[in-house]
Amino acid sequence: MAPEKKAIEGVEWRINVGDGSSKSLVEEERFATRIWLGIKSLILKFLIFFKKARDIGANDPRKIAHCVKVGMALSVVSLFYYVRPLYDGVGGNAMWAIMTVVVVFENTVGATICKCLNRVCGTSLAGMLAFGVHWVATKSGEKFEPLIVGASIFMLASAATFSRFIPSVKQRFDYGAMIFILTFSLITVSGYRVDKLFEMAHDRISTIIVGTSLCIFVSMLICPIWAGRDLHTLTTTNMDKLANSLDGCVAEYFNSNESDEESDKKILGYKCVLSSKASEESMANFAKWEPAHGNFGFKHPWKQYPKIGASMRNCAYCIEALTSCILSENQAPDLIKNQLRDVCLKVSSTSSTVIRELSTTIKTMKRSSDIDFLSEETSIAVEELQETLRTLSNLHNPPINIGAETNSAAADETDATLVPLIEVIPLVTFASLLIEITTRIKGIVNAVDELANLAEFKVEADENCDKSRSNNRVEQDLDEKTMKTLQKV
Amino acid sequence: MAPEKKAIEGVEWRINVGDGSSKSLVEEERFATRIWLGIKSLILKFLIFFKKARDIGANDPRKIAHCVKVGMALSVVSLFYYVRPLYDGVGGNAMWAIMTVVVVFENTVGATICKCLNRVCGTSLAGMLAFGVHWVATKSGEKFEPLIVGASIFMLASAATFSRFIPSVKQRFDYGAMIFILTFSLITVSGYRVDKLFEMAHDRISTIIVGTSLCIFVSMLICPIWAGRDLHTLTTTNMDKLANSLDGCVAEYFNSNESDEESDKKILGYKCVLSSKASEESMANFAKWEPAHGNFGFKHPWKQYPKIGASMRNCAYCIEALTSCILSENQAPDLIKNQLRDVCLKVSSTSSTVIRELSTTIKTMKRSSDIDFLSEETSIAVEELQETLRTLSNLHNPPINIGAETNSAAADETDATLVPLIEVIPLVTFASLLIEITTRIKGIVNAVDELANLAEFKVEADENCDKSRSNNRVEQDLDEKTMKTLQKV
Repeated sequence: MAPEKKAIEGVEWRINVGDGSSKSLVEEERFATRIWLGIKSLILKFLIFFKKARDIGANDPRKIAHCVKVGMALSVVSLFYYVRPLYDGVGGNAMWAIMTVVVVFENTVGATICKCLNRVCGTSLAGMLAFGVHWVATKSGEKFEPLIVGASIFMLASAATFSRFIPSVKQRFDYGAMIFILTFSLITVSGYRVDKLFEMAHDRISTIIVGTSLCIFVSMLICPIWAGRDLHTLTTTNMDKLANSLDGCVAEYFNSNESDEESDKKILGYKCVLSSKASEESMANFAKWEPAHGNFGFKHPWKQYPKIGASMRNCAYCIEALTSCILSENQAPDLIKNQLRDVCLKVSSTSSTVIRELSTTIKTMKRSSDIDFLSEETSIAVEELQETLRTLSNLHNPPINIGAETNSAAADETDATLVPLIEVIPLVTFASLLIEITTRIKGIVNAVDELANLAEFKVEADENCDKSRSNNRVEQDLDEKTMKTLQKV
Repeated sequence: MAPEKKAIEGVEWRINVGDGSSKSLVEEERFATRIWLGIKSLILKFLIFFKKARDIGANDPRKIAHCVKVGMALSVVSLFYYVRPLYDGVGGNAMWAIMTVVVVFENTVGATICKCLNRVCGTSLAGMLAFGVHWVATKSGEKFEPLIVGASIFMLASAATFSRFIPSVKQRFDYGAMIFILTFSLITVSGYRVDKLFEMAHDRISTIIVGTSLCIFVSMLICPIWAGRDLHTLTTTNMDKLANSLDGCVAEYFNSNESDEESDKKILGYKCVLSSKASEESMANFAKWEPAHGNFGFKHPWKQYPKIGASMRNCAYCIEALTSCILSENQAPDLIKNQLRDVCLKVSSTSSTVIRELSTTIKTMKRSSDIDFLSEETSIAVEELQETLRTLSNLHNPPINIGAETNSAAADETDATLVPLIEVIPLVTFASLLIEITTRIKGIVNAVDELANLAEFKVEADENCDKSRSNNRVEQDLDEKTMKTLQKV
């Protein structure tokens, strides 16, 4: 049955042509259409790819600068081949300079320096060891030579490969370990065939040093991209995003602003914080290798930045849970919501002000003189929120041990707001998550404080402080300012 | 004053010796002590490092196997130097085989294949382009040759470097792009000096192919470490950890088991889920390159695993918020806590059973026949929890519109459990986070279901199902089993 059916299906595609032969016109047409569609989708894909690439360049022109720098460094290093005196000096070993530039030139100065030092140290160490092994091998006779060389390669390569699994080695010397294996194998093995081993090694190491120096100079002198500065900026940007996200979440929950694309984007800022762990750690790792630049000294405590990041993530987890309250189907009645609205907004605005103040502290590298005051303000707002929750709870527990008449009067009075607990659960959850967030913000405050101690931030001058505060806290209302002035007096 | 004081301090360290000269004995002693302490701490550090390294090897013997494999591959490839016929064939270009092995041999099969293909494709493509450029350059006269070569290096290196910034290229062809720049620069530049360019390129590409083939064979045939299988295991392990963490959290909150190191470790399992994003993504990326192995076909939907991971992280965020309830200073009174105890434990045990069932589904690659039933059980438990919360809410709103006598009687009756809302807030938050977690578990169920569809998991046979269930759900009590049997009947 099956083959027959197939045949019939096949026949359906064919029509008879004038000369008596049959042709599968439909199939041909289909084939052409398919090819055309394929080409069209390929062009479309290419256009999308091109657009994406253009966007990447437009969003961060430093990337284009990096590409130009790589091209430039390679052009310079290839002079080794064009200029006869240089080529006569090192000959074919000039390729090691080119190879070094290609392999070692990274986006940031720190990463480039890290790879350069790894390459030079790995090569030198392996070279010295290889000479030792070569010497022992040549002394032990022609028969044993390949055996000794082979065994030493096997053992040292295995050991160096294993060292790459150890986290502390992997973090700093991963590339160096690889280069160690490479150089050791090449030199010990070459020693078996190449006579002028020492000369070869000397030429190679000198060309590698030329390549690495060139890379370090180009990456540091022409539009340098510092891992440290990037890490610094990432941390402050993430802080601002966290603050915006917190504000946005609370505002959205109480429907105080309309939900548009802009506000959605603002709310989702916490996701950037959640996903920054890996980049923070690698940047901090590279920043350690960088010399002093801008406001950052040689011993700037880069290690502290990932800790600040961790405390921010700790806070972002709670904001993530908060967003689920916004999306939840169970919502407290608006009447009850409105009772908590103002105080919740106050908690969020004071908390986000604290975060923004911390961000300013890091940005300006000056201790904020009123972070304590702002934290205190948050605590007051939290207490107010707890007090409101208590009032809400009283509404739920009208006085019951007094006379029936008073009681019913009280009942009449509270009837409007009397709702079963089950209906306020979402709101209560929201409020207590908000309180938990304020607790976790203290973690960020501590982490930034530790950074300020380690990096010896100066105390900001009063005029500066007022200025930055007025920039940062436009959203705060007049009442708070009056209260503050009173408290200061 | 100051210099005088210094001088006096200096004198205090010196004592007169018999021959009239003075010696700073104390300083010398201090120096010796410092050196001794330095050596001691160095030895201690080395011992700690050594212990750590031994632990890494002991925890995952496959890492040691990998090191041995690298050593072996290098020893084999260095035969190129020792065996005369082989060396006569390729000469000094044999070093490219060694270099390939060192650079390309990665821990997992997928990563090795990915790098091998990148290396071969990058080299070939760059080689062909370089020949084209070389041909044009030689035709354009001696004056223009270095200019054309230099300009082409500059442009292509910049373009290839830029391509490494594009995420889709970076994910798959990062190494290939680097090798492209390397080979292109080396060949075009060498073309200016080396006469037998074609022969050199041929030797290089053939030695590279020898190196890559050797790497692929060794990594696939001797104790292969498959990125795919590792990803599969990581996903199921993380699921079990998530389930344990959820169980542990709820149990800890209601103090149903003592807090020891074991249970703390169990609770913190969710942190593994939170930190697995990067490794999941890179493993999924490498698994794509691997051939069919074990139960995994060539087209196994590896892309789906990071999605499952994302849904698990979504759940882990909430568990993270849950842990803060455990640590919180504000705790609901035990009396109220006990009212929710059983039903909360039921929700957590049914939810974690669902997660464990999903883990078994992935482990056995067989669709679970009772995941729907288990999910339904969770929903029932959640409804019970909501019902209990409603009862709790009634306790807070004793009937108030009846006569005074009945009222005071009712008050007497409920007095024991009557607490202000503020005191139950932590408990209510805990309960609603738990409910949110069950909602998010549905996301994991959907993600695993999609995997089952894409990978065409078979439906498990009934006997298997009973067996695995009995293995997985020891913690479930008899009542539930009876209920289930009744429902099934």
